Amino acid sequence: MKKVLFATTALVATAGVAAADVTFGGYGRFGILYVDTAAGDSTDITSRFRLQIDATAESDAGVTFGARVRIQQDNDGSADGTTTGGVGVDADGDGDNDFRGRQETGINGVRFFARSGGLEVGVGNIFGALEFMPGMYPIDLGLTGHSYDYTAYNFRGDAYDSDTGGAAGLNGVEVMYSAGDFSMHVSASDVNDRLAAHFAYTFSGWTVALGLQDSDAAGDTEWAVSVGGSVGIADLSFAYAKNGDDNNIVGAGGNGDHWVLAARFDVGAATNIEAYVADADYFAETSYGVDFNHDLGGGTSLRGGISSTGQDVTLVDLGVRFNF
Amino acid sequence: MKKVLFATTALVATAGVAAADVTFGGYGRFGILYVDTAAGDSTDITSRFRLQIDATAESDAGVTFGARVRIQQDNDGSADGTTTGGVGVDADGDGDNDFRGRQETGINGVRFFARSGGLEVGVGNIFGALEFMPGMYPIDLGLTGHSYDYTAYNFRGDAYDSDTGGAAGLNGVEVMYSAGDFSMHVSASDVNDRLAAHFAYTFSGWTVALGLQDSDAAGDTEWAVSVGGSVGIADLSFAYAKNGDDNNIVGAGGNGDHWVLAARFDVGAATNIEAYVADADYFAETSYGVDFNHDLGGGTSLRGGISSTGQDVTLVDLGVRFNF
Amino acid sequence: MKKVLFATTALVATAGVAAADVTFGGYGRFGILYVDTAAGDSTDITSRFRLQIDATAESDAGVTFGARVRIQQDNDGSADGTTTGGVGVDADGDGDNDFRGRQETGINGVRFFARSGGLEVGVGNIFGALEFMPGMYPIDLGLTGHSYDYTAYNFRGDAYDSDTGGAAGLNGVEVMYSAGDFSMHVSASDVNDRLAAHFAYTFSGWTVALGLQDSDAAGDTEWAVSVGGSVGIADLSFAYAKNGDDNNIVGAGGNGDHWVLAARFDVGAATNIEAYVADADYFAETSYGVDFNHDLGGGTSLRGGISSTGQDVTLVDLGVRFNF
Repeated sequence: MKKVLFATTALVATAGVAAADVTFGGYGRFGILYVDTAAGDSTDITSRFRLQIDATAESDAGVTFGARVRIQQDNDGSADGTTTGGVGVDADGDGDNDFRGRQETGINGVRFFARSGGLEVGVGNIFGALEFMPGMYPIDLGLTGHSYDYTAYNFRGDAYDSDTGGAAGLNGVEVMYSAGDFSMHVSASDVNDRLAAHFAYTFSGWTVALGLQDSDAAGDTEWAVSVGGSVGIADLSFAYAKNGDDNNIVGAGGNGDHWVLAARFDVGAATNIEAYVADADYFAETSYGVDFNHDLGGGTSLRGGISSTGQDVTLVDLGVRFNF
Repeated sequence: MKKVLFATTALVATAGVAAADVTFGGYGRFGILYVDTAAGDSTDITSRFRLQIDATAESDAGVTFGARVRIQQDNDGSADGTTTGGVGVDADGDGDNDFRGRQETGINGVRFFARSGGLEVGVGNIFGALEFMPGMYPIDLGLTGHSYDYTAYNFRGDAYDSDTGGAAGLNGVEVMYSAGDFSMHVSASDVNDRLAAHFAYTFSGWTVALGLQDSDAAGDTEWAVSVGGSVGIADLSFAYAKNGDDNNIVGAGGNGDHWVLAARFDVGAATNIEAYVADADYFAETSYGVDFNHDLGGGTSLRGGISSTGQDVTLVDLGVRFNF
Repeated sequence: MKKVLFATTALVATAGVAAADVTFGGYGRFGILYVDTAAGDSTDITSRFRLQIDATAESDAGVTFGARVRIQQDNDGSADGTTTGGVGVDADGDGDNDFRGRQETGINGVRFFARSGGLEVGVGNIFGALEFMPGMYPIDLGLTGHSYDYTAYNFRGDAYDSDTGGAAGLNGVEVMYSAGDFSMHVSASDVNDRLAAHFAYTFSGWTVALGLQDSDAAGDTEWAVSVGGSVGIADLSFAYAKNGDDNNIVGAGGNGDHWVLAARFDVGAATNIEAYVADADYFAETSYGVDFNHDLGGGTSLRGGISSTGQDVTLVDLGVRFNF
């Protein structure tokens, strides 16, 4: 038996780290979700398991080529839709879909990339320039994220999809570039022939971002702006998106103006509180919510939140998240 | 190159061990299965591949949060059923389904848990209090398990499902507790509004267990008892379950009384022999079987068994299992 | 904290290596594919992600038991076919299937094996004696492999299937044996009751192989021969297959004679060029193509090729492949 000493780069025995050039990480979360709509209320268990697989190789010239896929299972009731064969299952016959079926359980669409220095080219299930624009996810409310009313572009652009094919088969392409305090991101796909970009600049702790999109669809986002920074113990963020012309339909669609004001406050060493208020032309009422995240150490945390959505739905969740 | 010494807890280079806090393990088995029914007999290859993924994180207070999922593929002929989209495939046109299709191949329903000391709370695709009651799996017959007639509660309660969603979307919850020689397990789910519990106590090498269940379904298990222990080279086990009232249907259902007597004998250093006899109100005849398991070392074993089931089917299997 | 030194066999920090006895490896590739048919031409992104899982255990007597599965996702437009539930998705409504749907994303059929010295027995999703005959894959054209017109047996025999069940449920069995310069491979399955074998012998750097098959299907391969070796900087290969009697249908089927001449030339230290010419009774015209593979180091390479297929389709591809 020959004894050897490993180099420090060889293997690191912490969570989310590589077996060779394939790394496995992710998170699990579980807890309780209360939903109160005009049709009635329900309290159910909510859970998600996400295993993320990152595979990479680096050329002699220092270019990293890689792929990211996820194996994810949510227990929520909504089906994936017929195009991917997803059918919700009402296993206990109470009128709700209890389980999305097996369609959730394989890998999702693959994002391939080539990266060198501050430049990255992505292909397939792309991140999307508007989805990745600073200020679009100013907070992550509660355990489950709630209604994402605080995401101003309202998913009216390309985005990485964790549990279906996403843009993988749709010729999605993107270029990301950063240099010092400046960053930009251009993405394009066959979906509505979208071409989108964002530009962001950070100065004195504040980040200003501008997003633009050209699309064949009237309801897609046209432009967006965001400003975010820190004031004392608070992180503040404002975002606005012009999601096409207002279609004058309240309670449906997502067209017209959409603005979001959000904040995060550190409360003690291990706890923060997040809050938002948002409104949009298609909202029935102003949307708002507040949450807390309490760090339990070791990648685990206790999380909960309450919100009143733009569609007048009340959501309350509480549970545990663990990263691995 | 900086040289380091790893701590012993860092990485252990044996089977089934972690890449960080995500561990991959499982087993494969393959061999021959002979089935003789009133309709005729067949001899086919049987195989299973199971990759089990356990992901965990531990909070500073010592609570372990985690999730267990499996990626499993059996080659048996039965389809998963239409609710999950599974369709068996008769690829060679001989009238039997040869392959369950792709539905087998994703991850199954997730079991989430929080564990601290002797207490564990499970959520989702739960283990189930009757399924995990001592004495319900006194033996594991042959290569494939055969008819599981030796499982007295007859699957008339919640159980972890390795190849479909299981209770994942069904608000399954359970609490497991052990202290010294005593253990208990309470589980509940939306399926038939089941509430089940078992209590077990071990003294002088013998384990006595009692199971109870309240359910909306007439055929579900009402109560069960088991006793198991060792006498010389033999492990003996007796179990009885009251699976609802006898419906007087022979050859179908699973209602009424069900009892099982089972034994395991060590024969030499690397071989054991298992045998059982069981009967139930719905059996057409008494069920019995015998098997052998021969350890080949390194996690591999040769296994085979023969049984005559309660439905008058003869099963013979022989093959290899390897754990990884 | 106890410090230890690892044995060299413990863990090796390079790509494709084990987390214990389960190893994860594979490759990704992405680039551009141009297709020109009589009906028109198209240029699209092409991509594949393959994660290969090899699980093994070794008995005390030195027999290795194991299983191989793959999780693979292609973005090509063809559906898997209705038998496995695969449905192509035309997400952008341009008349092409953009995405195979979720059916691609689970594990494929499992190949189980037992191996000792030069002897290996395989069960399930078998490799196949004709598929693994030397000379059947003399080259791997471009990024995507193009039409595989250079595979003389034309897939008219059993083969390992990376993205569906393959022969897993079909009682596929095979035996592979090698001793010095001689190797042989016998495979059998329920598909068309195929029984196939190949025998190969290597002398002075040249490999000669003979394949034989008995099958219930008129169009299956009857016999095949191949010769391959090196002359200076070139690797040359010739293969011929008798794929049943010529059915006199041009542009369809795959019956009759099929021959292939292929070569690989090293051009500089990191680049090679491959070329082939092939013809078959069912080809509308002679098929030919040429490619290059340029090694970028670290398991990455730049690849591209152009071919004119036997069905008068022009294919051009260019892109990157990375092994992990």
